[in-house]
Amino acid sequence: MVINMRVFYPLLLINFKTYIEALGDRGLNLAKIAEKISLEYGVCIAVAPQFVDIKMIAEEVSIPIFAQHIDPYMPGAYTGHITPESIKEAGAHGTLLNHSERRLRVDEIELSLNRCKELNLICCICAGNTPIAISLSMLNPEMVAVEPPELIGSGISVSKAKPEIVKSSVEAIKRINPSVHVLCGAGISDDVDVRKAIELGSEGILVASSIVKSKDPEKLLQKFAKAMLSS
Amino acid sequence: MVINMRVFYPLLLINFKTYIEALGDRGLNLAKIAEKISLEYGVCIAVAPQFVDIKMIAEEVSIPIFAQHIDPYMPGAYTGHITPESIKEAGAHGTLLNHSERRLRVDEIELSLNRCKELNLICCICAGNTPIAISLSMLNPEMVAVEPPELIGSGISVSKAKPEIVKSSVEAIKRINPSVHVLCGAGISDDVDVRKAIELGSEGILVASSIVKSKDPEKLLQKFAKAMLSS
Amino acid sequence: MVINMRVFYPLLLINFKTYIEALGDRGLNLAKIAEKISLEYGVCIAVAPQFVDIKMIAEEVSIPIFAQHIDPYMPGAYTGHITPESIKEAGAHGTLLNHSERRLRVDEIELSLNRCKELNLICCICAGNTPIAISLSMLNPEMVAVEPPELIGSGISVSKAKPEIVKSSVEAIKRINPSVHVLCGAGISDDVDVRKAIELGSEGILVASSIVKSKDPEKLLQKFAKAMLSS
Amino acid sequence: MVINMRVFYPLLLINFKTYIEALGDRGLNLAKIAEKISLEYGVCIAVAPQFVDIKMIAEEVSIPIFAQHIDPYMPGAYTGHITPESIKEAGAHGTLLNHSERRLRVDEIELSLNRCKELNLICCICAGNTPIAISLSMLNPEMVAVEPPELIGSGISVSKAKPEIVKSSVEAIKRINPSVHVLCGAGISDDVDVRKAIELGSEGILVASSIVKSKDPEKLLQKFAKAMLSS
Repeated sequence: MVINMRVFYPLLLINFKTYIEALGDRGLNLAKIAEKISLEYGVCIAVAPQFVDIKMIAEEVSIPIFAQHIDPYMPGAYTGHITPESIKEAGAHGTLLNHSERRLRVDEIELSLNRCKELNLICCICAGNTPIAISLSMLNPEMVAVEPPELIGSGISVSKAKPEIVKSSVEAIKRINPSVHVLCGAGISDDVDVRKAIELGSEGILVASSIVKSKDPEKLLQKFAKAMLSS
Repeated sequence: MVINMRVFYPLLLINFKTYIEALGDRGLNLAKIAEKISLEYGVCIAVAPQFVDIKMIAEEVSIPIFAQHIDPYMPGAYTGHITPESIKEAGAHGTLLNHSERRLRVDEIELSLNRCKELNLICCICAGNTPIAISLSMLNPEMVAVEPPELIGSGISVSKAKPEIVKSSVEAIKRINPSVHVLCGAGISDDVDVRKAIELGSEGILVASSIVKSKDPEKLLQKFAKAMLSS
Repeated sequence: MVINMRVFYPLLLINFKTYIEALGDRGLNLAKIAEKISLEYGVCIAVAPQFVDIKMIAEEVSIPIFAQHIDPYMPGAYTGHITPESIKEAGAHGTLLNHSERRLRVDEIELSLNRCKELNLICCICAGNTPIAISLSMLNPEMVAVEPPELIGSGISVSKAKPEIVKSSVEAIKRINPSVHVLCGAGISDDVDVRKAIELGSEGILVASSIVKSKDPEKLLQKFAKAMLSS
Repeated sequence: MVINMRVFYPLLLINFKTYIEALGDRGLNLAKIAEKISLEYGVCIAVAPQFVDIKMIAEEVSIPIFAQHIDPYMPGAYTGHITPESIKEAGAHGTLLNHSERRLRVDEIELSLNRCKELNLICCICAGNTPIAISLSMLNPEMVAVEPPELIGSGISVSKAKPEIVKSSVEAIKRINPSVHVLCGAGISDDVDVRKAIELGSEGILVASSIVKSKDPEKLLQKFAKAMLSS
């Protein structure tokens, strides 16, 4: 299913965080559900599993795999760090950077981006508000995900609570750097949120707990996929 | 080979760092060599591969596997971090903590140790000098590895350059906390270094580049194993 | 008043944190009150003002002045950091280290301690629980202050809520390193807390909001001083 | 000399770092020399002393004073940190942010900038290369200083070694955000460097060791001032 390995938009990116519900075989299972829905609906669904699971999941499913973070180091004497080479070798296609739970120095973000470009890894940089999203867009990442930290895990979606953030971020970023794809995250919990986010101009959704902790992730993903198509 | 899965002393612990020479299949290959020599000589050899390779290596070899670092977090919303649960699920038996290339706050070390104890993971805490080694030994880790950072990767072994550090660390630690096993690291490059370290009271060796970058790691490991036995 | 410039025990150490109520002239005023009560009752009261106020306060009062933190750097190219030389030149007699609001790596603590010893600066290392307090006592600081972070600023004193922590920390630390003075902090809000802490073996009190935010700090300090004397 | 308290361009900003040569009275002396040359030549010279010296220097000289760093915290329970309120109360007019020796997370930079704007403090954000300078300019600081870290303290000026960095940074920043003033730093050691930097479009110079460690800082500052005027 080569077509699925490529990132296209709108994108649904599922961050497994360090949730126990998405660790090991449960993470693999969730990735397989994501692959199934992706094929069924023709939407792009990517997953960001925990580091130890990247290789296993990359071997078993044919959807884009993201790491949740990388360190901006070359291979070498950097005990305990994550090189971009290691996630690529494990089968990842890209990585999140600067998630609100793993904020980075600006020089680290720039260096990580460059290292990823060398290795053809896709970066999705997270930003907590519009000014930071605009600022980081100037570094030319593939994607920027705007996630107000106060909404993450809240069940209150940015597309509902702060629709102006989504709209103004998308417009401002596209104006200064049209090549950057703008995702929307934080608090997305149902298909209404997804549809709203896409309508507001978002080119994708970054989601975590609502899918990972769902009692029926397959059904919820189906609803998300439909919402992405219909918007 | 159940006997091999248990850590016993003297221990040879090979840190793969983020070396490209020990990433992916090359890391697996090195782990298999370690397993072979371990069985052949009856010495305990453990490996600390990169995060993405832990699961694959744990499935293929029957020697103790260490992570190179963990974060002191519970499973949950900690994007981009390494929970002890994740390395255990992947098959690791323990972890390095506070390596000179990944120093930690003291509260993080204590919390990580406690989290590892809950999960029956073995901790090897690194320390750059004798006073820090003594201090951290009071937290009751399974092992402390004394590694002067200025010697790491230098090819000048602590057992040769600063034998008094090895001796005084071992004696001081054993006096205040006899249950802690003292390893010696930094600059170990040949079997003479290994023998010397063991003679000075060290209960094991933490080694990295000399093995990982060796043209013939099998032969070098044989020499190390013999030196450990003969001391 | 040379006698006042020396630290003696029991010690009352007032941390001004970055409270606006203790910034600039208000900090100077509070330091003068501390000096007055110190002289009146013959107890040792030290203050830890904000960095920018150290010099002014050191010039105006004759009680021991502590910084709230130092970085373990030599004078040189370390823009934006606090060298021990700078706080000494400004008139400080010592520093807090590893406060729960400014935790440090263990190698930084050891290096900072050594730098302070070179310059005859007194260190009070903070620890959030008994095991960490014991561990850090092995590094031979002048003082260790045990402050469970969950009680800091809570108004619930460690001496009331967790008297066993105070008692066991003091006993354990004195057993392994009798030269370390053990302070007690977190949640101390009245003279009953102070008396209790001293009775439990504490050689001093680390206090912040209860004094800094008091409507009548002079009266409260009088009560604290009496409690220290009567215990 | 009210006119001198305002920042105007071209600006010469002298970073005292944590050099012993600019600590305490020696820092005050250097600030007085800067004030004298500033008045004599009508150029704007600002100084960034160590935290403990800000208040004393601000009381004695009438030139703009910068802190070398602030933390993005409100006054409150932030032991060991530097609030913008504290540097303002001490007399500072602004602060450096994200110096190569004190790099920050991007969310910290944005928050610090906002806190400074609330308090009418001027920010000079440092950046190690053109892409980062452009990115951070989108956050609307008063100034951005472009300083390739590899040239800092090298005696090789960016205006000589990498004139294209100065030129391209200035042009790119002015194109996207004309309100940002672009300074040039790293390795400026003589008046030729200063003249060159101004000719390349830089609106000021960020300098440290060449002035602070000069045997005759007055004479060197005179030459710098003339170069700034003649460009």
